[in-house]
Amino acid sequence: MKSRKQVVILGGGFGGVYTAMNLRKSLRASDKLDIVLITRENYLVFQPLLPEVIAGSIDLIHCITPIRRLCPDIRLITREINQIDLKRRKITTVHGVRPQPLEIEFDYLVIALGRGHDFSSMPGLREHAFTFKNMADGLILRNHILHSLEEADIEMDPQLRRELLTFVVAGGGFSGVEVAAQIHDLFHNIRSNYPSLKDETVRVVLVHSGERILPELNDALGNYAGNILRRRGLRLLLNERVERAAVDSVYLQSGLRIPARTLVSTVPSTPNPLLNMLECEIENGRVATQATLAVKGAENVWALGDCALIRDEDGMVSPPTAQFAVRQARTVAANILLTHREKTGREHFSFSGLGKIGSLGRRSAVAEIFGLKISGIIAWFLWRTIYWAKMPGLDRKIRVGIDWALNMLLPGDTVQMKIADREKIAMEHFEAGQFVFRKGDLGDKMYVILDGEVEVIAGDGEQEKCLAVLGKDCHFGEMALWNGEPRMASVRTRTPVNLMTVSSQDFQLLLNHIPAVRDAFTAEMDRRQRENLLQNETSIPRGQ
Amino acid sequence: MKSRKQVVILGGGFGGVYTAMNLRKSLRASDKLDIVLITRENYLVFQPLLPEVIAGSIDLIHCITPIRRLCPDIRLITREINQIDLKRRKITTVHGVRPQPLEIEFDYLVIALGRGHDFSSMPGLREHAFTFKNMADGLILRNHILHSLEEADIEMDPQLRRELLTFVVAGGGFSGVEVAAQIHDLFHNIRSNYPSLKDETVRVVLVHSGERILPELNDALGNYAGNILRRRGLRLLLNERVERAAVDSVYLQSGLRIPARTLVSTVPSTPNPLLNMLECEIENGRVATQATLAVKGAENVWALGDCALIRDEDGMVSPPTAQFAVRQARTVAANILLTHREKTGREHFSFSGLGKIGSLGRRSAVAEIFGLKISGIIAWFLWRTIYWAKMPGLDRKIRVGIDWALNMLLPGDTVQMKIADREKIAMEHFEAGQFVFRKGDLGDKMYVILDGEVEVIAGDGEQEKCLAVLGKDCHFGEMALWNGEPRMASVRTRTPVNLMTVSSQDFQLLLNHIPAVRDAFTAEMDRRQRENLLQNETSIPRGQ
Repeated sequence: MKSRKQVVILGGGFGGVYTAMNLRKSLRASDKLDIVLITRENYLVFQPLLPEVIAGSIDLIHCITPIRRLCPDIRLITREINQIDLKRRKITTVHGVRPQPLEIEFDYLVIALGRGHDFSSMPGLREHAFTFKNMADGLILRNHILHSLEEADIEMDPQLRRELLTFVVAGGGFSGVEVAAQIHDLFHNIRSNYPSLKDETVRVVLVHSGERILPELNDALGNYAGNILRRRGLRLLLNERVERAAVDSVYLQSGLRIPARTLVSTVPSTPNPLLNMLECEIENGRVATQATLAVKGAENVWALGDCALIRDEDGMVSPPTAQFAVRQARTVAANILLTHREKTGREHFSFSGLGKIGSLGRRSAVAEIFGLKISGIIAWFLWRTIYWAKMPGLDRKIRVGIDWALNMLLPGDTVQMKIADREKIAMEHFEAGQFVFRKGDLGDKMYVILDGEVEVIAGDGEQEKCLAVLGKDCHFGEMALWNGEPRMASVRTRTPVNLMTVSSQDFQLLLNHIPAVRDAFTAEMDRRQRENLLQNETSIPRGQ
Repeated sequence: MKSRKQVVILGGGFGGVYTAMNLRKSLRASDKLDIVLITRENYLVFQPLLPEVIAGSIDLIHCITPIRRLCPDIRLITREINQIDLKRRKITTVHGVRPQPLEIEFDYLVIALGRGHDFSSMPGLREHAFTFKNMADGLILRNHILHSLEEADIEMDPQLRRELLTFVVAGGGFSGVEVAAQIHDLFHNIRSNYPSLKDETVRVVLVHSGERILPELNDALGNYAGNILRRRGLRLLLNERVERAAVDSVYLQSGLRIPARTLVSTVPSTPNPLLNMLECEIENGRVATQATLAVKGAENVWALGDCALIRDEDGMVSPPTAQFAVRQARTVAANILLTHREKTGREHFSFSGLGKIGSLGRRSAVAEIFGLKISGIIAWFLWRTIYWAKMPGLDRKIRVGIDWALNMLLPGDTVQMKIADREKIAMEHFEAGQFVFRKGDLGDKMYVILDGEVEVIAGDGEQEKCLAVLGKDCHFGEMALWNGEPRMASVRTRTPVNLMTVSSQDFQLLLNHIPAVRDAFTAEMDRRQRENLLQNETSIPRGQ
C-alpha cells in the first residue's frame, strides 16, 4: 500500500478551489493526503464583478485571484484535461511545453468542471459571438467594443457606423443584464473622447426568451429592472431568441434582423464535453450525485458546482451559482476527510440560498435577500458590499475598493490592447443574400466554401451579371492574393454559407512551400481564366 | 483654395503625441487648421515604466495613457499606415472593418514613426525572441514568464526545468538592464507560490556587446550597476552578442549555447520600413532634417523622434529618447504654426539633455543628472519621482502612485492570462543536431521545411537508424495528425533548419475542405508507406 494518498480536484472555479481550500484547512500531517488541483487558468474568476471590467470600473486583474495564493501548498497543474479514467483511476492532461501528456493518479476524485459553451445548433454564433466567462473574455470584449468605437469614429458610411455602434446581448439573466448595462455605461463614460460620435446614439439590445428579464427574481423586481434599463435607452426584446448570426447581423427567431457587429451570448451553457467520457450516472447533462455529493455509480468520486446535479433533502435542485458551489465544497471536503480517515457517517448537503442580487450599473441594483425585496441605490450599495465582502483574499479587497473609489473621481479609460494576431485560418458565417466582398475591395483573404452556395457577380444594380455559382469545397478570392490587385468581381451568398478563410500571409506561405498546393492552385487559375474568356464571349443570364 | 488646412501626424509615440499636444495648445480658431494623428495603438506608452509591468509593481494599463485623453479634440485614426505619398500629398492606411483603405490628404506632414525591429540577420530571433516596446509586449512577456514557471513547477525532467527557468536578455542598455532586473524580481516575489520551485534558482542572463553595461552612463556608474546586478545573482555576459536562437537555446557569437526558452531582445532597432517609400533625403536609415526639423528634400514636412536624424547647432546628434522627442515636438509645432500663419523666421532645435537615469529594480538605480552622479536608493527615489512627474495625465499619476504604495504592502501576483489562441501557422527555427520531435510524442502539428535538412530516425543510441533525409519543401509529421497516433519515429535536424508548422486543427481543415490538398497528401502517404515497406526490407546504413 502507498504511504500517501492523493485527492485530485478537476476544475478551478468556485467548486474546485473552495474544496481545496476547505481540505487544506482541515488537513493534519497525520492524514498523509496530497491535494492536486488541475485547472486551465491559474486564477479564480470572481464572476459577479467581471462585467465591471467592461466599463472599466475595476481593473481587469482585480476581479480574479491567483489560486496559488488561495491554496499555497497544494500541487497546482495548469493544463487542460484530456482524459478522465475512473476505472484505472487516473487523469491525463494535454501536453505542455513538451509534446507529451501528463498522467496523474488519484485515490479520491472531485469533479468540478463547470459547463461549456456549445453553439452548434446556432449557425454563425461560434464564429461571431463573444462569450463572457473568464478574464480573457472580459478583456477581449472590452477591446472589441473599443475597437468598434475607434472604427465608427473614422467610418463615413452611416450604415456601417450603425452596425459598429449596435451591441446585442443574448440572455436576460443576471449576467446578460449586467453586461448590457456595462456596455451602455462604457459608451457614455468615454463618448466625449470620440469627437465624431458625440451626436451618435449607441444601441444596446438585450434579447431575452422570457416575458420579463431577470427570471431569477420575482415579477416586481424584474419589471423594475426592465423599466430602469429602458429609461436609460437600452432596448429589451422579450419573448425572443437569437437564432443565427453573421459578421454584420444578428438574426432572431421572429425573423427580425439586427444589423450589428457585436453579439455577446450569456445564454445558459451546455455540459462540459469531458463528462461524456465518465463512466458514471449522468442526468440531464450533469453528473448525478447522492445526498453526500458522492457520484452515483463511482467509488470515492464526488461532484459539485455547475457540472453536478445536486438535490437537497427537500428535492430542490441547486442553481448554478457561486453561492451554492461554495457551500457544496464544504460538504465534499468534509466527506473526503471522513472517508480517508475511515470514519463512519457522511455529511449531507443542505442549503437554501441566502438571496439574489444583481447590479444594473450606474448605482442601481435589484435584490431579494432573506425574503426582503430591495431596489435602487440601496440595493446597489448592498451589492457592492456583499460581493466585496465575499471576494477571496484581502489584497483583492483592497485593490477593488481603491478601483471603485478612483472610478468615482477619475475619467474613464479608452485604451485598446491589440494582443491577438490578426486571425489566420478562421471561420465565417453568412446568411443568404449578403456580400462576402465587393468589387474594388482589398484582397485580404481567400475563402473555401464549407457548405452553401455563392455567386460571383460583375456590375451592380441593373447591370448586374452572375458570372458563376460556386458550391461546397469551391474556393474563391485567391486571385486578388495571387496578383495583389483589388477584387475584380463581387461575391454574394445565395444560401446561408459557412466559409473557411485563409489570410493573405498564410496563403502565400502555403503556396510557396507546399508544391502540391501550388500546383493545384496554378491549375485552377488557368482553368478559371479560360472559363472567364469563354463567359465574356457568350452572354450569361443574370443569376438570382 | 480649401477653407481649412490639415496637418497630419504619423506615429503615436512621444514625438507624434507631443507635437499634437503642443499644436492644439497654441491653435486659435482663426487658424482654420485641423490636426489628424494616425497611430497603430490608441495609447501612448510611457516606456520608462514598462519594465515595472513585468514584476507587477505597476498595473499594465497604468504605464500608458489614452491619446484621446491627451489630445481630446484632434482626429485620431487608429490604423496602420500603408503608404505615404509626398508628391500627391496623401496617406493611405490599411483596411479596417471593411476591406477598403482610407486616404487622408495633408497640407503639412509630421513624420514621427519611430523605429522597427528587424531580426532578418539573426536566424531564429523572429520566431523565438520577445521584443519589448509596447503594452502588449509587456503583457505577453509577463504571461510567458508565468507560463514558464507553471510548466517548470510540474516538469520532472531537470534539463527542461533548467531551460524553462533560464531567461536571456539581449542588450545591456537601460531597457535591457531594467527588463533583466524585473524578471529577476518577479521570480523572487512569487517563487514561494510554486512549491516545487522553492529550491530552484532562476538564471537571468544579460548579454551585452560592450565592455560594461549601461553605455549611456560613465564607467563608474556602469560598473556600479554591473556589480549590483551580479551580487543579486544575475549573470552578465560582456563583449558578447546573441547570434541565433532556437526554441530551446540561445546561441552566442563566441559559440556558447545557453539552454533557455525565453529570449528578450532589447537591442537597437532598425528603420521603420515605411521610410523606404519616402521621396526625401535619408541618412543612415533616418530621415535627414534641417535645423528647423523640416525634412530635407520635401516641402512642409517635418520629422522628429527616433526615425529622424537630428543634429543641433553644435553638430550633436539627438539620442533616441523620449526626453529629446518631447523637446523636438515643441520646435516642430512652433514651425508648423509659423509656416501656416505665413510668418517669417523659424525656430531651430537646440537641447543638450537634462540627464540620464535607469532603475535596477529592488530600490536601486543609477543616475547622471546635471553633471551629478548618483546611485543606490537615492537614485531610485529620484528615478521614481522624475518619471512620476513626467507621466502625462493626472489620473495616471494617481494610479501609478497607488500601485507603488500597494506594491510595498501587498503580495505579488501570479495571474497568467491566456489570450492568444494556440498558434496556428507559425515558424520555428532549429540549429543542427536538435530533435524536432521524438518517437512517442503527441502529434500536435505538421512541419514543412523552408530550408535546411532533417533526418527521420528509428531507435536510439546504438540502435539508431536513419530512415530518410528530407530537404527544402518536404513536409513531415502529418502521419500522426492523419491517424491520431503518437509519433512513429524521431526527427532530428542535420543543418540549421527553418520550419513552417501547421497545427493539427488547421491541417484537418485544409485537408477536409481543399480537395487539391487532400489529394496531394493522400498520394504522398501512399508513396511513403510503400517506401517504408521497402526500407524495412533492405537495411539502410545509419545516417550522420
